[in-house]
Amino acid sequence: MQKTLDFFRENDQYAKHSGIELLEVKAGWARVKMTIQPFHLNGAGTVHGGALFTLADYAFAAAANSRGRLALAINISMSFVKAAYDGVLYGEAEELSLNHHLGTYQVKIVDDKQRLIALFNGTAYRKNEPLIGDE
Amino acid sequence: MQKTLDFFRENDQYAKHSGIELLEVKAGWARVKMTIQPFHLNGAGTVHGGALFTLADYAFAAAANSRGRLALAINISMSFVKAAYDGVLYGEAEELSLNHHLGTYQVKIVDDKQRLIALFNGTAYRKNEPLIGDE
Amino acid sequence: MQKTLDFFRENDQYAKHSGIELLEVKAGWARVKMTIQPFHLNGAGTVHGGALFTLADYAFAAAANSRGRLALAINISMSFVKAAYDGVLYGEAEELSLNHHLGTYQVKIVDDKQRLIALFNGTAYRKNEPLIGDE
Amino acid sequence: MQKTLDFFRENDQYAKHSGIELLEVKAGWARVKMTIQPFHLNGAGTVHGGALFTLADYAFAAAANSRGRLALAINISMSFVKAAYDGVLYGEAEELSLNHHLGTYQVKIVDDKQRLIALFNGTAYRKNEPLIGDE
Repeated sequence: MQKTLDFFRENDQYAKHSGIELLEVKAGWARVKMTIQPFHLNGAGTVHGGALFTLADYAFAAAANSRGRLALAINISMSFVKAAYDGVLYGEAEELSLNHHLGTYQVKIVDDKQRLIALFNGTAYRKNEPLIGDE
Repeated sequence: MQKTLDFFRENDQYAKHSGIELLEVKAGWARVKMTIQPFHLNGAGTVHGGALFTLADYAFAAAANSRGRLALAINISMSFVKAAYDGVLYGEAEELSLNHHLGTYQVKIVDDKQRLIALFNGTAYRKNEPLIGDE
Repeated sequence: MQKTLDFFRENDQYAKHSGIELLEVKAGWARVKMTIQPFHLNGAGTVHGGALFTLADYAFAAAANSRGRLALAINISMSFVKAAYDGVLYGEAEELSLNHHLGTYQVKIVDDKQRLIALFNGTAYRKNEPLIGDE
Repeated sequence: MQKTLDFFRENDQYAKHSGIELLEVKAGWARVKMTIQPFHLNGAGTVHGGALFTLADYAFAAAANSRGRLALAINISMSFVKAAYDGVLYGEAEELSLNHHLGTYQVKIVDDKQRLIALFNGTAYRKNEPLIGDE
């Protein structure tokens, strides 16, 4: 798990650019955090759907890749439940199913009062190659 | 349309932060552009799903808000069809339906060879208030 | 709740036609059941995606309409996790969020060994009129 | 194509049970038809989401399986744009992308006046085995 964690922390440029931290990875599970900053906002002054998505997607990618094989997002759906304005957001990815070629994951984004902000469901395709080339 | 265009260009901070340009807005339609930069990449070296989503979401938001009333994303689904590595990506949002409270939009993301990279479908809830307060 | 239950049991023709029973409705929650029959199968001999969807949608509709106001599906996403061949399937709808105009619900379909068969997420638009006209 | 057409017409029990006809199949493309009958309705007197889904899913399955290899639905999203009450509905599935293991398809459901009723996007996983065993 430490390798997956390190890999994502070092190599996910857009997550870095978006100020998102990967807090923890376990088998089929991951947790991320984003402290809301002015650059996260949309024209309505709330956190941009793209920033919420990136937060959720990062947790999804870490959880899906925690299994050792390279896992790529095929498709996702996301529901925006409540606007977020400031403070801290957390995303927690949970594995709903895993078979040879596919994994499905759900990510809940909550604010620091544990209110649901958005719900993300993603499917990943699992390649035969490992995530990290030299393993 | 010029007002909607100006509004988004000035006020969408996360789109700015992500290097996305709003090229054009018409009634129920919008076009955006993103020149791929190193900060757009994920750990696999391809454009991050979050960056693709943000690109699509920006086109969706502009198209949905082109109707004069404030439109908020309720939910979206997105399919990732082909990895993108470099060059320029375009997103074009088209209105599929519009009624009193809801609008549905589809965004196609293509590369500079017109190959489909991702497909985004979004539903917006239309509030009674205008997008721009003093109109 | 009894009125909602009776209403759906009497009036949902396609659920009847598909052999689906509404077992229970509570505020924001519903449970349904389908005993797999030959007419539920697709060409591959497994339960048809349409039958799984109808099962999930029935639970979703009952849960969304349990709040007293007419609630209509806007959009849904569904992941098919595991094929089902025979026996009994259950669907349980849970409310994830509810505001003035929108409700989001998740439905899990499981088999009689509690294995996840499919996952459904739906958004409903809540009209101002009641579900049942003479209330 | 004739074999795919025959296979689906003979073996898809739930489509038969739902009164859905497969009109035509081409490579990556299919067209289906459903004449609205009382058993298709929900409690609100409009065509049930499950019936619309089954119609779309049938077109999707035929288009995805037109390529000769067994293709299974992984996940779908569907937007319900306009209620349908009577008359005839058509679904047309179009292939948006195809690679070794995955295909993505879009199905538009329209009424007999060509008004959009629902929009369906589906992803299929393509197995190495053929759809029809003895081919």
